[in-house]
Amino acid sequence: MDLSSFATSLCTSFLIFVVLMLLFTWLSRKPGNAVVYYPNRILKGLDPWEERRRTRNPFAWIREAVCASDADVLAASGVDTAVYLLFLSSVLGILVFSGIVLLPALLPVAQTDHALLIAQQKNHSLTYNDLDKLAMSNIQKESPRLWACLLATYWVSFVTFYVLWRAYQYASDLRTTAKASPEVRPEDYAVLVRDIPSPQEQSMKEQVDSYFRALHPDTFYKSMVVTNNKEANKIWEELEGYKKKLARAEVVFSESKTTAKPEGTKPTNRTGFLGLIGKKVDTIDYCNEKIKELLPRLEEEQKKTLREKQLPAALVFFNSKAAAVSASQTLHAQMVDTWSVMEAPEPRQLLWNNLSKKFYERQIRQYIVYIIVLVTVVFYMIPITFISAITTLQNLKKLLPFLKVIVDVNSVRTILEAYLPQLALLVFLALLPAFLMRLSKAEGIPSQSHAVRTASAMYFYFIVCNVFLGVTLVGTLFSSLKDIIDQPKQLVTMLGESLPKNATFFLTFVALKFFIGYGLELSRLVPLIIFHLKKKYLCKTESEVKEAWAPGEMNFAIRVPNDMLIVTISLCYSVIAPLIIPFGAMYFGLGWLVARNQALKVYHPSYESYGRMWPHMHGRIIAALIIYQITMFSYIGVKLFVYAPLVLPLIASSFIFAYVCNKRFYQAFTCTPLEVAASESAKVVPDMEFIYTSFIPACLRQEKTEGADAFEAAESQHSKPASL
Amino acid sequence: MDLSSFATSLCTSFLIFVVLMLLFTWLSRKPGNAVVYYPNRILKGLDPWEERRRTRNPFAWIREAVCASDADVLAASGVDTAVYLLFLSSVLGILVFSGIVLLPALLPVAQTDHALLIAQQKNHSLTYNDLDKLAMSNIQKESPRLWACLLATYWVSFVTFYVLWRAYQYASDLRTTAKASPEVRPEDYAVLVRDIPSPQEQSMKEQVDSYFRALHPDTFYKSMVVTNNKEANKIWEELEGYKKKLARAEVVFSESKTTAKPEGTKPTNRTGFLGLIGKKVDTIDYCNEKIKELLPRLEEEQKKTLREKQLPAALVFFNSKAAAVSASQTLHAQMVDTWSVMEAPEPRQLLWNNLSKKFYERQIRQYIVYIIVLVTVVFYMIPITFISAITTLQNLKKLLPFLKVIVDVNSVRTILEAYLPQLALLVFLALLPAFLMRLSKAEGIPSQSHAVRTASAMYFYFIVCNVFLGVTLVGTLFSSLKDIIDQPKQLVTMLGESLPKNATFFLTFVALKFFIGYGLELSRLVPLIIFHLKKKYLCKTESEVKEAWAPGEMNFAIRVPNDMLIVTISLCYSVIAPLIIPFGAMYFGLGWLVARNQALKVYHPSYESYGRMWPHMHGRIIAALIIYQITMFSYIGVKLFVYAPLVLPLIASSFIFAYVCNKRFYQAFTCTPLEVAASESAKVVPDMEFIYTSFIPACLRQEKTEGADAFEAAESQHSKPASL
Repeated sequence: MDLSSFATSLCTSFLIFVVLMLLFTWLSRKPGNAVVYYPNRILKGLDPWEERRRTRNPFAWIREAVCASDADVLAASGVDTAVYLLFLSSVLGILVFSGIVLLPALLPVAQTDHALLIAQQKNHSLTYNDLDKLAMSNIQKESPRLWACLLATYWVSFVTFYVLWRAYQYASDLRTTAKASPEVRPEDYAVLVRDIPSPQEQSMKEQVDSYFRALHPDTFYKSMVVTNNKEANKIWEELEGYKKKLARAEVVFSESKTTAKPEGTKPTNRTGFLGLIGKKVDTIDYCNEKIKELLPRLEEEQKKTLREKQLPAALVFFNSKAAAVSASQTLHAQMVDTWSVMEAPEPRQLLWNNLSKKFYERQIRQYIVYIIVLVTVVFYMIPITFISAITTLQNLKKLLPFLKVIVDVNSVRTILEAYLPQLALLVFLALLPAFLMRLSKAEGIPSQSHAVRTASAMYFYFIVCNVFLGVTLVGTLFSSLKDIIDQPKQLVTMLGESLPKNATFFLTFVALKFFIGYGLELSRLVPLIIFHLKKKYLCKTESEVKEAWAPGEMNFAIRVPNDMLIVTISLCYSVIAPLIIPFGAMYFGLGWLVARNQALKVYHPSYESYGRMWPHMHGRIIAALIIYQITMFSYIGVKLFVYAPLVLPLIASSFIFAYVCNKRFYQAFTCTPLEVAASESAKVVPDMEFIYTSFIPACLRQEKTEGADAFEAAESQHSKPASL
Repeated sequence: MDLSSFATSLCTSFLIFVVLMLLFTWLSRKPGNAVVYYPNRILKGLDPWEERRRTRNPFAWIREAVCASDADVLAASGVDTAVYLLFLSSVLGILVFSGIVLLPALLPVAQTDHALLIAQQKNHSLTYNDLDKLAMSNIQKESPRLWACLLATYWVSFVTFYVLWRAYQYASDLRTTAKASPEVRPEDYAVLVRDIPSPQEQSMKEQVDSYFRALHPDTFYKSMVVTNNKEANKIWEELEGYKKKLARAEVVFSESKTTAKPEGTKPTNRTGFLGLIGKKVDTIDYCNEKIKELLPRLEEEQKKTLREKQLPAALVFFNSKAAAVSASQTLHAQMVDTWSVMEAPEPRQLLWNNLSKKFYERQIRQYIVYIIVLVTVVFYMIPITFISAITTLQNLKKLLPFLKVIVDVNSVRTILEAYLPQLALLVFLALLPAFLMRLSKAEGIPSQSHAVRTASAMYFYFIVCNVFLGVTLVGTLFSSLKDIIDQPKQLVTMLGESLPKNATFFLTFVALKFFIGYGLELSRLVPLIIFHLKKKYLCKTESEVKEAWAPGEMNFAIRVPNDMLIVTISLCYSVIAPLIIPFGAMYFGLGWLVARNQALKVYHPSYESYGRMWPHMHGRIIAALIIYQITMFSYIGVKLFVYAPLVLPLIASSFIFAYVCNKRFYQAFTCTPLEVAASESAKVVPDMEFIYTSFIPACLRQEKTEGADAFEAAESQHSKPASL
């Protein structure tokens, strides 16, 4: 890619970004769009335009995002989002600090050398442009200028260490402060107990109660045995469906009174498949009837579930935070694979179906999932090639003969032939995150946030292996795969040789990604259009409208790995092609701004894990740093610079840094330290009834079991020992 | 080695064993030897001959050892020894169960084949004997008889799994029962706290008190800050030395009254180096004077130590076992590398000097020790070769010319030349355990039992690598080291090829080891002779005599690795040369008998770790099993048997078995489960004063600080914040 086409592509993207931003300014001022641009504020009961009214400045949102305090962000979106913003700003910091030194130092060093000119003189078919002259490939082999590269590698590494150390400390403090707040969070008083052995003569509930009462005589409050709610949940969902339908039908009916005949038209539906076949009935009557029929069935099922479907897992409640923290970290049973305890996740992010999975089942599932992910990462090209092969036109014609007429039109065929394989790839890539999420839930993980972290890890491996290494090494890799297997050291050399060739590609990639990506993210064009379409044609009741603009949450499982890809690219090219640094810095700077805006106004997190994502982000930044250092070792080696081994101590120090950080901070992220749980500010007299009831699953809630006592009584009325 | 020489060597060893056993029977009946043969009973205040009087049977000790109940063993020597006996009996069980099937099945299969005969016909220089015909090397290549080998491997593996599972369960129960006993053990109420941050304005003691009082308001009792006792200890030891000298001088003086002049001869000594030079003084007066001088100095130093030499480590006491257990397993601080807690070791096995070592210092020391051990294991031949080179006669003559006269005598030279290198090897091997023990203490481990486990692990690696693999592969290994580095798979093939050649060597090795080794162990000839010599020529006072017969303890750091070597040999040859099984079984059977006898009557353990050695023994038996399975895979492969890969699932199942055992049992060995600490039987009202004072180091005990309150007060009277 030469300089002019690079500039053109850059300008185009920038233009699109400006247009999208203006669109955002214009659209977000329309009152009808408030629910799309300020849903988080609305859900929190705040005035969406509180500050906006004072100014007509189209960049006001930037001022708001920058000026908002950390406390505002925490209040609006919680610790998880604050930690994500910390991740963006830390990477920004690393890139800015690196850029300040690297750009003025390396660009002149590269610019004034002549390696490319010399290469061209030898081989006239070679071409290069001004952009290439600013990269390290313009430095001649064995040149003492390579000292600059080496020192730059050191600088970037130590900047990363410094920023990450500060950031880990800050993330740890964020978590601690939030955990030590006097707010009563039900999960702070509960412990999740799994792998409960089959009771001998008691019911599961009695066994749990007697076990924990004996071990924690002073602090034990109550226990809640996890039940198999599948049946109850099914009835409950059916019931809720009819209630919704009824509400909708009533609105339709009352509307028809005003528009058509004054007595109105009663809405009707068919009872068969999808409302398309079967007997035609009056919807309102039909729903009322169904609800009347389902209510007692639900009640019956609830009783049965509580009594007879107790599973070998339980939530145990304690009357103080310190007691719960202490209990969750203490080994309870002599046989370690029974009565395993852990801090309870938030009620809203509990994955109920996973709670009762047994110890060894979880282990086996985990290993199976690892293998599936490994296979997916390594062989992901195979299903795509397979799909591409099927979706070639010749095959399609054979399989679906009726397409023949269309396909034989020349222009259509050309387009299809060009895009079918890419389409297959896109579909596969789009399905991947959902597939990984499903996989990580299948591991038997007890909480949503943990599943997200696992899925994010899988996606990260996938994306780094297949996009970064894939693009870099493609072509060279497959032809010399045999060499690599024989001599793994080859891979390092290849990294150094092939990386510089792709510098311009990644430069454009980063630029496109932030201009178009953040433009779309900020302007929320897609949700806006969907919302208006839904509102116009589908929604009838208030709750349906609310559902239509529900903002959702930041999807960390996809966002973080994508950002991590940019971190890896920016670090790896920071010395080889220093021009990437400003683009990387813009990506994270703009990303931080946009994410902050969205955190304050748009997204509404559905759970809170108090920044448990941070150690993962931290670890992966260090992994990217180590890839970078290995790359530099190889690159400087390829340039035949005798001091290349001086990079090796840097790699060792990265490992030591990771080790020290891990030892110093990590455990406080996996469990709550006692000094936090027992701190003065965390001491409140909790409403134990509220804590207990907030863990009752929706489908088991009813008037009769609303209170903690009533629910517990229902679980205790067992008819026979639960058989597993 | 042919059959007759094997039989001769076996008979000789057996004869020596019988002689030693008769000697034992005769010697142990002499009243003057009771302290050598029954010291443990005497120390426990029991009658040494309680049962022996009834019978004159020389094998009575066998009956006693077999008939003693487990409770007797536990009472006499504690859980650690019981677990060691369990280890011996488990291995015995594995070998007996294996032998019952393997001997009748494999011996005929081997005997009736003709591989050796055929080989001899091809190459007449080959010889073989009847012993070789009973081994698997007599089976021809590709023969279907190899199925027997394969099935035997499966049988041995599953027998091992079964026995080990039962044994782990039993060891776990032993530990739990002991831990749940109502006996008050000081360490059950204490938690060891390390890495205490430097206090800001308080003293160390105040900081520890306020920190733990805040986090455990209901259960905290008191704390004891660890102090730097080096100075105090030095004075105290000097003082104790003079006290001993005084007691001895007084006895000498009173004896002289009866034997020589009635007024007696006052003993004298010189004050200079080793009592050889300097002024001659009256010992009694001199010692009295010294004691008078040292007492106030000690008192002064004790005060100073308690006040000013507080280190960043402490013992924190709780008023119940459950509280201490809970506290020891709970993360206390947000910064994980500060305030790290663990269960306190017994007072008698605390390594005081290691307690205050900081977190990262411990880590670094650990890695350095690992590297030193690795180097020792891999390159241990180098210092020996070096020493051998120095100690050749030519070099010795050059270095020490005065030896020339002796060395030039012909007969002396021959002997020296033959034995000098072996002597060097023996000296090095004898020094090794002490060296490893010193290394493991240098890691910063807080308790003696932990240091013993670490030293035992190091010695195990050393002995398996250098003796077992060394003997097996020597010769083939060094010549083809380059091949192995290029293709690690080679090692496996070599194992299969060279193992059978050494079968007879190891057979003799095991037989010699148990006949001579256990004969010496049982007869205690060496301690007996030393005791009588000391008693006659050195000991004057009662306490000196007691010191002379002090039985010491079973040195697990040396015993366990040596037994493990036999386990490895027996397992690896169990199929290749099944004749080794009866010898192995005899080794462990006899070993169990002797060890049980010694446990009941002789050794007096100096600490109790409640069987924490078991997981290590278990792990190493599985390691031996895996080495065995790999060997069999290679051996059957070398025989060109196409079903050899059927051994691979067995190796995988060994890993799975190890994993499951580890998950199920291991954690309960590293920390006490709450259900054990809070069990009904463990609930007693403890004497907290006694618990506290039992942790006061000997050199800091005195009348004024004897009580817990007084000691604590002394620690609290700080003059300034402790500076680190």
